[in-house]
This record gives sequence, C-alpha cells and structure tokens, in this order.
Amino acid sequence: MGNGLSTSPHNTEGPFSRGRFPHVRIGDDVRAQEQLLREQFGIEELQLVTGGSMGAQQTYEWAVRFPEKVRRAAPIAGTAKNTPHDFLYGDILMEAITSDPGFQNGFYDSNEEVREGLARHAKIWAVMGFSTEFFKREHWRTLGFTSLEDFQIGFMEAYFDPMDPNDLLCMAWKWQRGDVSRHTEGDLAAALGSIRAKTFVMPINEDMFFPVRDCKAEQEMIPNSELRVVESIGGHLGLFNLEPSYIEQVDQHLGELLDSPA
Amino acid sequence: MGNGLSTSPHNTEGPFSRGRFPHVRIGDDVRAQEQLLREQFGIEELQLVTGGSMGAQQTYEWAVRFPEKVRRAAPIAGTAKNTPHDFLYGDILMEAITSDPGFQNGFYDSNEEVREGLARHAKIWAVMGFSTEFFKREHWRTLGFTSLEDFQIGFMEAYFDPMDPNDLLCMAWKWQRGDVSRHTEGDLAAALGSIRAKTFVMPINEDMFFPVRDCKAEQEMIPNSELRVVESIGGHLGLFNLEPSYIEQVDQHLGELLDSPA
Repeated sequence: MGNGLSTSPHNTEGPFSRGRFPHVRIGDDVRAQEQLLREQFGIEELQLVTGGSMGAQQTYEWAVRFPEKVRRAAPIAGTAKNTPHDFLYGDILMEAITSDPGFQNGFYDSNEEVREGLARHAKIWAVMGFSTEFFKREHWRTLGFTSLEDFQIGFMEAYFDPMDPNDLLCMAWKWQRGDVSRHTEGDLAAALGSIRAKTFVMPINEDMFFPVRDCKAEQEMIPNSELRVVESIGGHLGLFNLEPSYIEQVDQHLGELLDSPA
Repeated sequence: MGNGLSTSPHNTEGPFSRGRFPHVRIGDDVRAQEQLLREQFGIEELQLVTGGSMGAQQTYEWAVRFPEKVRRAAPIAGTAKNTPHDFLYGDILMEAITSDPGFQNGFYDSNEEVREGLARHAKIWAVMGFSTEFFKREHWRTLGFTSLEDFQIGFMEAYFDPMDPNDLLCMAWKWQRGDVSRHTEGDLAAALGSIRAKTFVMPINEDMFFPVRDCKAEQEMIPNSELRVVESIGGHLGLFNLEPSYIEQVDQHLGELLDSPA
C-alpha cells in the first residue's frame, strides 16, 4: 500500500486522501497479501517468498507472521529490522520533499509544484542508493549516459518524476519502521528464531543501506538459513539489474533454494 | 579561506561579501599558507604536513605543489582527488541550505532565517559523516546523549548552528573540487608520483566518504608511502576523537613517521 499502484495517497478519495493518508506498515502489506492469496486464490502455503529492499522487509514479515505458511524465504538487500542509520536516511529523503514550499503539507495540485523537492530527493537517492565505486568507475556509462548530470537527470529524476510525492513519503515512512520484532515485544532474536522457512539471506556486497554485516547478524538468528552474498557494483540499486551478472547470481541462489528440501 | 575563522563570506566587506564571495580552492589555501610561513616566519621546510578531511586535501596539495619543502606528509581521512560520490554528496549538503527560502541567495540577515535549511544540512552530515555501525551500536550514548534525536540536535545541530551558511557553502564547494591532478593536466598518477615526502596515507576504516580502497589506490601511486589504516567506529567523524583509541593510533603513526628518515 502506498506504492502508487495499490491503494495510495494519490488515488484515495475523501478525507484520507493525499496529505491525510494514514501511515501504513510492512505488516499491513503482508496481512493484506495473505488475505488476498487465501480468499481469492485459495493459496495456503508458499514455496518461496522473496523480494528486494522493502520486498525483503515483506519477506521477513511473511516468514515471522505466518511461519507455518512459508516454506522458503529469500530476502534480498534488506533487513528484518530497519537500522537507525537507514531511519535517518529516510528522514533526509522525506525532508527533501516536505521542505519544498510547493509541497503544501501534501495538498499540491501536481508534481510540477514539488519539482525542486523531487529533484533533491532523487539526488539524495543517488548518493547512497549506488555504491561509491559505481560512481568512481562511471558505471552509468554502461547504461548509455554521457555524464554524471545526464545520468542524474535521465535516470534518477526520470525514475522518480512520475511518482506522487505523498506516495513516496508513505513508502519512506514504512521503510523506516520495518521491524519484525514488533511481534515479539522488541526481541529480534525471538522473532527471527521463530522462522520455520529455509532462508537464504541475500545482501548485495556494495549495498550502503544494508551492509553485509547487518544482514549477516540477522541471518545468524534464523535457524535454517544461509548467507548468500550477491555481488554488484551498483550497491543497493544493483536491484535494478545493472549488470548481467546480477540476475544470474540471484537465479542461481533461488534455484538452489527451490531445490532444497523445506 | 572560507572556514569562518580566516577570510570568509561572512566577514568580508564590500561587493564580494556574503552571497558574492568568490569560489576558493584547496590550492588557494595552500598557496597562502606557504606564503605566510615563508614571509612571516621564514620557514622554508616542513618536517611534517598533516590534517584530516579537507586538511588531508591540503596535505596532498602541499606535497604536490611544494615537493621540495615537505619532508613528511600524513593525509588523514581524505583524498588527493575528490571522488564523484563525494561531489554528489556535496551537492545535497549545499542544496539543503540553498533550498531554504530564507537563504535568499546568500543575503539573509542571520542564521535564524536559514534555520530549517541548516537543520537539514546537519542531518545529511550525520547520515554519512558517521558509520552505520556508530548508529547501530548507539555509540552516541558514550558522548552523553540519551536518544538519537538528542544527539542529532545536541551534537550535530549544535556543531553547525554557529557557522555561517555562506561559509559552509564555500567550504563544500572547495571540498567538491579538491584535486591535485590539476597540476598535471588531470594525470593523478603523475601528480602523486611527483611527491617526495615520506607519506603515511591514513584512512579511517569505517569512513563512508573516503573508503580505504579509494585511499589505498592513491597511496599506491606515491613513491615513498605506506598505508596506515586508523580504526574508528565513528567513521569519517571519528576525526572528532570519539574514542580514546583514535588519537592513540594517530599519535602512534605520526610518531613513527617523524622518527623515519626523510
């Protein structure tokens, strides 16, 4: 919810529209997903739950909230409990938008009015979304861009421009507070220890949001789990499949996971 | 120059004051420092040039610009040529200030008018100035703060609040463009290869601006040099000496450097 495709601030009518859309959590997403699968499709068991970034947060939420339903789990480039660093980062992303006078507490008429805030938001994403090495090696050239500015505008701004600012804020707030230990009174080891799924924890080696050591610390709390590090110079946004080797590695790991008894 | 103590936007009278202060480079600083030492103190040779962050940039500039004068050099937590990542980071720092309507192109009456932009600027500094681990382990507690917000306001905002916004912008612009290869038509290997000083390159292991690998790549281009990694959970702002072990390590390395023939 809030992602611009499902129920979101920009497509909600009435008093909860736009700047008054309620806060939504990862747990709300997963509860709704489970209901959809069960009621609409009659699916009671999942062979594999996987996703990247906030999809990884949802994967962890699935495995902890519905341990009897999830046979295998593969959170990619994300954590079960968001870190304080990433919480702060979420703040600066959100403030880039809300500080634009055109934002008007969420009651702008169009993205045009928040253009400057959105441009700042896109640049903040670039600074940590990609690795330092991605920029140093000018890896954006392989994507067809001719300068850093060309990449920043043609890729980052172009990616976020069609997105509604309130939707972006809804997702950032949700990211900040992802935490499966909400089910266990703050005890992360208890939450992760309750997972029954065979789990591959798959951080990206150059990820500046979700360093391997953070993901490894969580993986070690999951009974039937392995750490599978994916290599990508892209860093977190290696999730965009910036190199052919990225998706090959993901396929390889997920294939092995699906072939394992669970 | 521009640091708020020496000639800076806020203390300059006339047409070049405040929002019209000229851009200043690391090379301008070092040229003036050399003149001061020579003309006022008669110093023609330096046993050791050292400094952290932009002080490291100045150290490299000294060693390349005046190779015959610098016998030993120890750049700490900084690079000889600024990276594209850090250039982008400089942009988002600067935009946090300039996007505040109270900034008025640099012709505000007091910091009060730019309070919101300064607060955003301070938070962006926190996000990469410290390591992810610094926040995860709540290392700010050892500095006497009781919550992350308490630290953010009581330390980061308090640190930057007395600084003039135009001065901060002057320094950020200078940081972005630090590059000793300006002396060698962009050939960094030629610039670093011309250094005669015995050099200890001293990155901080958790630094998110100046990763060890970036510093190591530069160190390998310096003829008479060693890589000496300093460990600090603080990351770049470990430069504030957040742990007793930080200054002990720096003292140890500088002591060895001063004891080496050069």
